Amino acid sequence: MRIALDAMGGDFGPPNLVGGAVLALREYSQIEKLFLVGDTPRIEAELKKLQCNDRRIEIVHSTQVVEMSDGAVQSVRRKKDSSVSRAVDLVKKGEAAAIVSAGHTGAAVAATTIKLRTLPGIDRPGICALIPSETNVFVLCDAGANSDAKPEHLLQYGIMGSVYSRHVLGYKNPSIGLMSIGGEDVKGTDLTKEVFKMLKQSSLNFRGNVEPHDLFGEPVEVVVCDGFVGNVLLKTCESVGDAIFKWLKHELTKNKLRIAGAYLAQSAFKAIRKKVNYEEYGGSPLLGVNGICIIAHGASTPLAIKNALRVATESIEEQVNPHIVEEVARYNETHAPLESALH
Amino acid sequence: MRIALDAMGGDFGPPNLVGGAVLALREYSQIEKLFLVGDTPRIEAELKKLQCNDRRIEIVHSTQVVEMSDGAVQSVRRKKDSSVSRAVDLVKKGEAAAIVSAGHTGAAVAATTIKLRTLPGIDRPGICALIPSETNVFVLCDAGANSDAKPEHLLQYGIMGSVYSRHVLGYKNPSIGLMSIGGEDVKGTDLTKEVFKMLKQSSLNFRGNVEPHDLFGEPVEVVVCDGFVGNVLLKTCESVGDAIFKWLKHELTKNKLRIAGAYLAQSAFKAIRKKVNYEEYGGSPLLGVNGICIIAHGASTPLAIKNALRVATESIEEQVNPHIVEEVARYNETHAPLESALH
Repeated sequence: MRIALDAMGGDFGPPNLVGGAVLALREYSQIEKLFLVGDTPRIEAELKKLQCNDRRIEIVHSTQVVEMSDGAVQSVRRKKDSSVSRAVDLVKKGEAAAIVSAGHTGAAVAATTIKLRTLPGIDRPGICALIPSETNVFVLCDAGANSDAKPEHLLQYGIMGSVYSRHVLGYKNPSIGLMSIGGEDVKGTDLTKEVFKMLKQSSLNFRGNVEPHDLFGEPVEVVVCDGFVGNVLLKTCESVGDAIFKWLKHELTKNKLRIAGAYLAQSAFKAIRKKVNYEEYGGSPLLGVNGICIIAHGASTPLAIKNALRVATESIEEQVNPHIVEEVARYNETHAPLESALH
Repeated sequence: MRIALDAMGGDFGPPNLVGGAVLALREYSQIEKLFLVGDTPRIEAELKKLQCNDRRIEIVHSTQVVEMSDGAVQSVRRKKDSSVSRAVDLVKKGEAAAIVSAGHTGAAVAATTIKLRTLPGIDRPGICALIPSETNVFVLCDAGANSDAKPEHLLQYGIMGSVYSRHVLGYKNPSIGLMSIGGEDVKGTDLTKEVFKMLKQSSLNFRGNVEPHDLFGEPVEVVVCDGFVGNVLLKTCESVGDAIFKWLKHELTKNKLRIAGAYLAQSAFKAIRKKVNYEEYGGSPLLGVNGICIIAHGASTPLAIKNALRVATESIEEQVNPHIVEEVARYNETHAPLESALH
């Protein structure tokens, strides 16, 4: 397998990215070639620091970096030599099978969409985030690629999320929920009400509207929403989790009795922390582009980058894209043209 | 003070609602009259069960209840004798100063908007939810009244949330954040980008876009968003909090060592649980209607209803509405007509 890593993006740049690359190469022998795309001297310096001279590494020099203040589409047009654009070029030329980026999400979405195009039958790609609950892992699609989404996009997120849940996570008949603000089909926005009708008419295992309390109470395997709502939801889960654990730590260290109690019970906290640690998940596949693109967290640690590279190898192995094309084609055969599902 | 309680709504109906009313009457002597609106025999049965014959109670009979599957506006038109409509009528006739409802949120919003109208300068009311963090309490507006919002609505939520934070919560110069999916002003939806410009041009203490991790990390006092996003965000906070505490409980009871540790540290858990317990907050004011309406949680316990009635008394005392009218008028003087802020 040949993978391209955008080595410049993210909150911490080359140190964490190159660090993650080195960890991944040590662990995943199925990676035959790892392109590190970015500023050669900085990448070389990190490799030297880590005493890594793995022959599977190939540095691809690029002179520009997309900044968080850049517009997504503009960044592709104006920064042609950015690390993320050059990494996508490697996939386009067939030199790499997947790209991993922890940089500007919008830029990664725009670069892959413009350069690789979307899969047949897919209008807009969606980020497929994995969220752990006590009893399972569900996918949330779209978690932030497409903020101003149309009904057909959300239907396609349902199809793609369902394929991912089945083929990568191993759920046999994943149930799908539409994120809304009430269980009844009269609740929601104009957008969600249209999507409700389309999902109901599809052959997907649609359970209806779901609300946030269902996510952890009566979980579905696939949660469909637009990218703005999905991004807020995903980051709220992370941020409430972090806030509670920080707060717990403050409270648990306030006196000796509590410190003693926390010490005795520490394995319980660790069990949960491990399962909710985003570093273990590493990256979210951007589904729907004609290629494999894994979006890693901006604040990724080396461990998170290593796991994002693992997600890339899984996506290559599991052939998610051909399955998506097949499922969308099947949908379109029975519902074509797609718009007819609206009425 | 005279308050009307919709005694039929919510997941549990009269038992919890009447139970909360009885608790409130015991505690709040400033309530001079409490109308319990709904099915007289059921309300009387609950009062009898609780051995309450407080003379401040007046039962107002109504024969209909808005069901969760009813449309919001339709419920007002078609169920003219619903408990929520009758309760709003009492405010309209000046017999009560505030209404409290734990029923169908959309119906309460529609009934108050149609019957009481909005305040001068306000186009659409917004639910102003209070969310606790470790260090403060912030307001989220809109938390679910208006799912398909326009830019000017969100600007008005900023003004109203700011008034509430200042006059009821006591923050001197509340900072305002616009919920978005990136800190930079180029990030977000078409809606949030327009609102960003309007808030920036206003004299409000606007801090820019905020993301969920800012809510608990570097909190602002007022978070502005549309009602769909706000409702998902609020319920996600509640649901992640609940899920983590449940999960903790399971992990902490898995073996004797952990049980002993949890016992020693129990006061730490209780301190957090108490602060994040929605029952203590009770209800969220629906700001922007010409009257006072407090929206309680559908799953309200008697304690939550008691506190929702407390929030109603506070809103009456603090004269939030005249302050809102004043602030909106001040905004419109300097920016009139409001639409001009768009360009």
